[in-house]
Amino acid sequence: MDFSIRAANLDDCKDIARMIMELAEYEKVSDHVKVTQKDLEQDGFSKNPFFHGIIAEVPEQHKTKEGHTKIGYALYFYSYSSWSGRAIYMEDLYVMPEFRGKGVGKALMSKVAQLALAAGCHQLNFTVLNWNKPSMDFYLSQGSFDVTATMGYHCMRCEGEALEHLAQL
Amino acid sequence: MDFSIRAANLDDCKDIARMIMELAEYEKVSDHVKVTQKDLEQDGFSKNPFFHGIIAEVPEQHKTKEGHTKIGYALYFYSYSSWSGRAIYMEDLYVMPEFRGKGVGKALMSKVAQLALAAGCHQLNFTVLNWNKPSMDFYLSQGSFDVTATMGYHCMRCEGEALEHLAQL
Repeated sequence: MDFSIRAANLDDCKDIARMIMELAEYEKVSDHVKVTQKDLEQDGFSKNPFFHGIIAEVPEQHKTKEGHTKIGYALYFYSYSSWSGRAIYMEDLYVMPEFRGKGVGKALMSKVAQLALAAGCHQLNFTVLNWNKPSMDFYLSQGSFDVTATMGYHCMRCEGEALEHLAQL
Repeated sequence: MDFSIRAANLDDCKDIARMIMELAEYEKVSDHVKVTQKDLEQDGFSKNPFFHGIIAEVPEQHKTKEGHTKIGYALYFYSYSSWSGRAIYMEDLYVMPEFRGKGVGKALMSKVAQLALAAGCHQLNFTVLNWNKPSMDFYLSQGSFDVTATMGYHCMRCEGEALEHLAQL
């Protein structure tokens, strides 16, 4: 299938916001999404951005019945491991359902891997829901490994009132 | 106990490297540590740093028998959640064993929480080894929650030859 992979820009935020919602619906948590198109514009495309994005795009003749040509995306940011040094974290990887199985997800992830190596990063980290077997199988087939299962790492979070309380110590 | 919390600077990298190794020894993985003092200096204190640091320090009269006054640290970087927006990730939180139970760890984490809120972040994320019960209890007591246990998120990683292979797609 004919598609291209490129860096995201400000004009992509509307489609990224749409696909974030589609991904959350797939993960059955669309009520958790607070991020808006405006947030993405501010947080990803101003000085000192909090994230970067990559877009997968198809030519006009392959657009969806709703008229979309932007059919997948990845969000990532640079991170650090105190053991291994420079790292990259892939926050999201998404391909619209009708375009899956055609190498788009792999091409997006490959681009993130290229950017990681170009920046001197030794790790590409991400998280997967343990019930999402198709995604888990996809990542394992590419040589990724499950750090939680093999080493016992658990993701932890402090937010809302707990975060405010902690800051007031 | 008398101690102070402040932003880390270039001169702290020697002590941060020492404490990274101490933490890895506690986690029984000191052979995993590849990061050197020089890496920390380059990656944390040049333009577009990959991480930021916080140091806990005691006055000279409370120095350790080896002469250390820098007795704890936290490393963090800014990150992003496509659901919640701006976030902060705490890579490490460490206090030397003889200074534990005196509020140093809580003060370091509180400082990270303050920085998170000041930057408009809604989440403070980190990982914990599931066998490290004292740390897990410490974090849970402050209102943090285990995202892996409650939502099923697993940490995943692609590195080494797998990362290079992925980039060559």
